[in-house]
Amino acid sequence: MNKQQLFENIQKKKSFLCVGLDTDIKKIPQHLLTEEDPIFAFNKAIIDSTAPYCVAYKPNLAFYESLGVPGLMAFEKTVAYLKANYPDQFIIADAKRGDIGNTSEMYARSFFDYMKVDAVTVAPYMGEDSVKPFLIYPESWVILLALTSNKGSQDFQFTEDVNGVRLFEKVLKKSQEWASDEQMMYVVGATQGKMFLEIRKHAPNHFLLVPGVGAQGGSLKEVAQYGMNDQCGLLVNSSRAIIYADNTPAFAEVAAVAAREVQEEMAIYLLEKGIIKA
Amino acid sequence: MNKQQLFENIQKKKSFLCVGLDTDIKKIPQHLLTEEDPIFAFNKAIIDSTAPYCVAYKPNLAFYESLGVPGLMAFEKTVAYLKANYPDQFIIADAKRGDIGNTSEMYARSFFDYMKVDAVTVAPYMGEDSVKPFLIYPESWVILLALTSNKGSQDFQFTEDVNGVRLFEKVLKKSQEWASDEQMMYVVGATQGKMFLEIRKHAPNHFLLVPGVGAQGGSLKEVAQYGMNDQCGLLVNSSRAIIYADNTPAFAEVAAVAAREVQEEMAIYLLEKGIIKA
Repeated sequence: MNKQQLFENIQKKKSFLCVGLDTDIKKIPQHLLTEEDPIFAFNKAIIDSTAPYCVAYKPNLAFYESLGVPGLMAFEKTVAYLKANYPDQFIIADAKRGDIGNTSEMYARSFFDYMKVDAVTVAPYMGEDSVKPFLIYPESWVILLALTSNKGSQDFQFTEDVNGVRLFEKVLKKSQEWASDEQMMYVVGATQGKMFLEIRKHAPNHFLLVPGVGAQGGSLKEVAQYGMNDQCGLLVNSSRAIIYADNTPAFAEVAAVAAREVQEEMAIYLLEKGIIKA
Repeated sequence: MNKQQLFENIQKKKSFLCVGLDTDIKKIPQHLLTEEDPIFAFNKAIIDSTAPYCVAYKPNLAFYESLGVPGLMAFEKTVAYLKANYPDQFIIADAKRGDIGNTSEMYARSFFDYMKVDAVTVAPYMGEDSVKPFLIYPESWVILLALTSNKGSQDFQFTEDVNGVRLFEKVLKKSQEWASDEQMMYVVGATQGKMFLEIRKHAPNHFLLVPGVGAQGGSLKEVAQYGMNDQCGLLVNSSRAIIYADNTPAFAEVAAVAAREVQEEMAIYLLEKGIIKA
């Protein structure tokens, strides 16, 4: 999916919500445990109920890998289900990969050739040749970690160099030599509200993938206020607050209500910015 | 496996070689393609022939993931085979993971609870809470990226802060607040020969995992000269130069010769350092 298509989906859905499929066998409703593949059964129900209110899904690889082969099969089935039934959804493999060139090539092959997702999250520590192999596929996206939503983001990401440039800023600047905003996005945590002003100085046109709204405490209003650009430029992720909104047999309907609430708030911000009409 | 056991294995084997199992279906000998599981068949043969000359194996997850479920099954079979037949081998899942706390917990569960490897490589960009969940398992190891062997290591890892501390040095310093040298190692690329002097200023006692010897051009002699400490403190990885030394039906024997050559050179450096006796 290209940038223009993503933008059009945002206008159509009046939403820039990404639903995070951090599906944990220990947290899903108990009645699903008798299903042949409880993880996929959960994802399918969540997708069917929330798809009208979001433009993207972000399965988090860690949750699937922790179950070994059955987990990976559930991941693959989830991606295949999305592509077959909701082809307008942007699919992000949240994997935080990044390795030397020949290894990143393998990861790229895995995600774009084999699983056919739209985007993969990548860690920047190893630099250009760890990122570029992900960009050889047409309409494939790298979502590079810039400023994350966790406490540990303080450890290295704010380190200033001799010119006062912080590491996350250096990542934003340097990585724009590797790809344009047609193939690269950045992860920017919602817990860093006003930092979006700083981010937009360096990346005015890029889409930003924003985790940390909901369970992690970030404010959607602040993110929209400081982070939105003329093409929206935001994909705000919510995982736990939506998918685990309820754990009874009505979980999917309750998740839909939670997703819809977020979507309705998003519609207000899109309207205020003039991106959609009333 | 704890640090003392690893050191004793190094003395016993007169080797600090780690064989990297970067097994690529496109590079293994063609006659294996008729096997039910060509990747595992290749690994098994390589392991059986090289085990006398090394103390560790490092399967690179990317190569297995790129094949989807069958790849992951081959990875799991490889780990199980090592544990059953060569319990004195230190097993490193080269995965370069790292994510927010609840996600890193999942990765830790995946590698230590489910696959039962000894160590996993982790990227430091997201800081403390992305690393610590890997350390809750007894005798589990984190191998943190410090200075990598690729060209892209120049992009961010050498960035100096206002006190002249480079990012890789900050990673070395800060991370020692999270774990001791009994549970943490560092990745330091062999292509950065004399940098081992700098590394050892900050981490005199830690084991270092050293990729980049062989195909990537690093010098074993330099690594031993500048990087070895009294407990060896080195695991030098070679992947392509050993496992793809030959692609005829004699590939495993040729790999053994390649591994043995490295081991014999290592024995010289261990002897010179007084770690083993003549």
